[in-house]
Amino acid sequence: MLFSSPFAVMRFRPLINSRAMNFRARQKKLRKYLAASHFDILLVSHLPNIRYLCGFTGSAGFLVLTETGSVFLTDVRYDKQAREEVQGSKVVIARKALVTAVGEWMGSRRKKCGGLTIGVEGEHLTIAGKKRLGEGLPSGMRLSSAPDWVERARMVKDEDELASIRAAVNLGATLFDRATEVLRPGVTETEVAAEMEYAARAAGVEAMSFPTIIASGERSALPHGRATGKAIAEGYVVCDFGVILAGYCSDETRTVWVGVQAPKDAREAYEAVKEAQLAGISAVKPGVCAAEVDEAARKILRRAGLGHQFTHSTGHGVGLEIHESPRIAASQKEILEPGMVITIEPGVYFPGKWGIRIEDMVAVTDNGCEVLTPTSKDFLAV
Amino acid sequence: MLFSSPFAVMRFRPLINSRAMNFRARQKKLRKYLAASHFDILLVSHLPNIRYLCGFTGSAGFLVLTETGSVFLTDVRYDKQAREEVQGSKVVIARKALVTAVGEWMGSRRKKCGGLTIGVEGEHLTIAGKKRLGEGLPSGMRLSSAPDWVERARMVKDEDELASIRAAVNLGATLFDRATEVLRPGVTETEVAAEMEYAARAAGVEAMSFPTIIASGERSALPHGRATGKAIAEGYVVCDFGVILAGYCSDETRTVWVGVQAPKDAREAYEAVKEAQLAGISAVKPGVCAAEVDEAARKILRRAGLGHQFTHSTGHGVGLEIHESPRIAASQKEILEPGMVITIEPGVYFPGKWGIRIEDMVAVTDNGCEVLTPTSKDFLAV
Repeated sequence: MLFSSPFAVMRFRPLINSRAMNFRARQKKLRKYLAASHFDILLVSHLPNIRYLCGFTGSAGFLVLTETGSVFLTDVRYDKQAREEVQGSKVVIARKALVTAVGEWMGSRRKKCGGLTIGVEGEHLTIAGKKRLGEGLPSGMRLSSAPDWVERARMVKDEDELASIRAAVNLGATLFDRATEVLRPGVTETEVAAEMEYAARAAGVEAMSFPTIIASGERSALPHGRATGKAIAEGYVVCDFGVILAGYCSDETRTVWVGVQAPKDAREAYEAVKEAQLAGISAVKPGVCAAEVDEAARKILRRAGLGHQFTHSTGHGVGLEIHESPRIAASQKEILEPGMVITIEPGVYFPGKWGIRIEDMVAVTDNGCEVLTPTSKDFLAV
Repeated sequence: MLFSSPFAVMRFRPLINSRAMNFRARQKKLRKYLAASHFDILLVSHLPNIRYLCGFTGSAGFLVLTETGSVFLTDVRYDKQAREEVQGSKVVIARKALVTAVGEWMGSRRKKCGGLTIGVEGEHLTIAGKKRLGEGLPSGMRLSSAPDWVERARMVKDEDELASIRAAVNLGATLFDRATEVLRPGVTETEVAAEMEYAARAAGVEAMSFPTIIASGERSALPHGRATGKAIAEGYVVCDFGVILAGYCSDETRTVWVGVQAPKDAREAYEAVKEAQLAGISAVKPGVCAAEVDEAARKILRRAGLGHQFTHSTGHGVGLEIHESPRIAASQKEILEPGMVITIEPGVYFPGKWGIRIEDMVAVTDNGCEVLTPTSKDFLAV
């Protein structure tokens, strides 16, 4: 697979069509934030933020937003791709190192504007990246961390995004059907993952949204138990999986009992997790704070004597990234708004024994929420 | 899939065994650099660097190296996993936010050492990450970008690493056999990728090392043409693919003609790329600089009148990451050493028509190089 590349030409392409409308609307929102701040320019370097704002899906580039327009700079590997994908921004193919090209473009701006404060994405730009950018800038320009405007905008999904997410969630859910067909004693965790991932690819997904978790037996007590070569035996199997379709992620967890009969404590814990998950969902509505949703789920498990086994937070936002804002955790004060898409995924874990987690994706609506994940949560033994 | 988690306990585990020897040797090398520098502590945050130094494979943690020892800090999601995986370092499970835990650990050190300069990884740590770390530190401690010691150490692979890379490369190569079985007119690019990825999973790989590139027809002229739903027709198909096995990446590209007979220009260009690739390989030996290897391949394509179509650099290092140092490019002065593992992958691209790329992985030996990729480079039509 190729590394970046030094050869290029510089061209421009204006483009207006219907799909560009979303990107223009998103950029317009950002420009309002920019106009109301002390920043003159926003330099977007985080790839999912770039994709959100102009549609580019490659692995290298900078989107430069000013109060009046935007320019997307990438290298020659993405010449054709950028011209095909980018909407609402001029495309510039860098003839030299990308940071140098950014510096030169800034220099051409300065003739018009004098000194400039350039906002960078502090949560994403590395120390060395900032240093290199700074070295390429003409004097009188300074780089400073901007607020997380793009992440905040991305929290609330527009109609197109919700449609993309629904499609990803529905396709993702079919993989669990495939899992239950192949989940049997003696089959390895990776074999189950392979069957799910093959079904995903055959259905046209771009990629899995994270390495598929198939955690069986004692490994089900590992909250992040990627599939291994272990043969599945009697016990719980946590299946946590997602797909990326047209850029948007799905995320779902179901826990299946493999074998004839689950012991009473394991069976009861399943019902407690299910009840906690439903309580979390019931708490989701506009105006509620993220911590309240977390507490709604946590309270049920505490009452069931399983509070100490619920060792992680209740959920997170999902969209172009598998983990986005808002986080649904005890410490989080974020207020839910219509259009936010989050997971609700309580779990309980007994190290050395077993674990259970149930996860749906839900969209906040005007007066509550819509559960996007269509899969049954009833206890299932195979 | 879970987000990070706030609940934890703090424990220690010393561990010595044979596998730990490599990690101890690697850490020892780093400590020498540290001792010869003005840094008191190296704070490693880049996950592949952490894996290289102590074996941890999870997605959150900091490795703190001092001149006398090391501590690995992670959060509760990775409690059991860290205790199982980490070698050569104490394990600390953070009871609170990881950066806070790092600050507290540093505070406990300061009582012993007074003021400290802490080296951070400027190429990996974000501006905001550095700020948060800094806020958690006791006064008298300062964070400063350290040299890329770990990346430089990682350039030269030890015997265990070479064995892991060989295994990954050989397994990866079997996927091309699978591709040639299914590559036929009418089959989609994603179907080919799905078959290859299924074979990879079935053979036990952890993941693909990057999204599989199956670029057919005009799309073969896109150096980064991920598989799409496009049905394959007569023409070249660039297959660029790799697997991750026990942490180590493989990377291979072959270009296949689908159809009866390739036109003369396409056929000749294939031979030119093959000749350039062999010339690049012939140039690989200790003491040669990376730019010379690039030039050896580039010269052949220039002579064939294809210099302008070779739009990217010749190769890159491969190991725990798919793209590592050294880069094999015209601008690179790095001197090759025995134990380095690099790709040699010239290509030519005619936008709107077709493209060809051939890529092997090679290991620098004491007096030349060993081609690791076993796949034939002869022109192949299916």
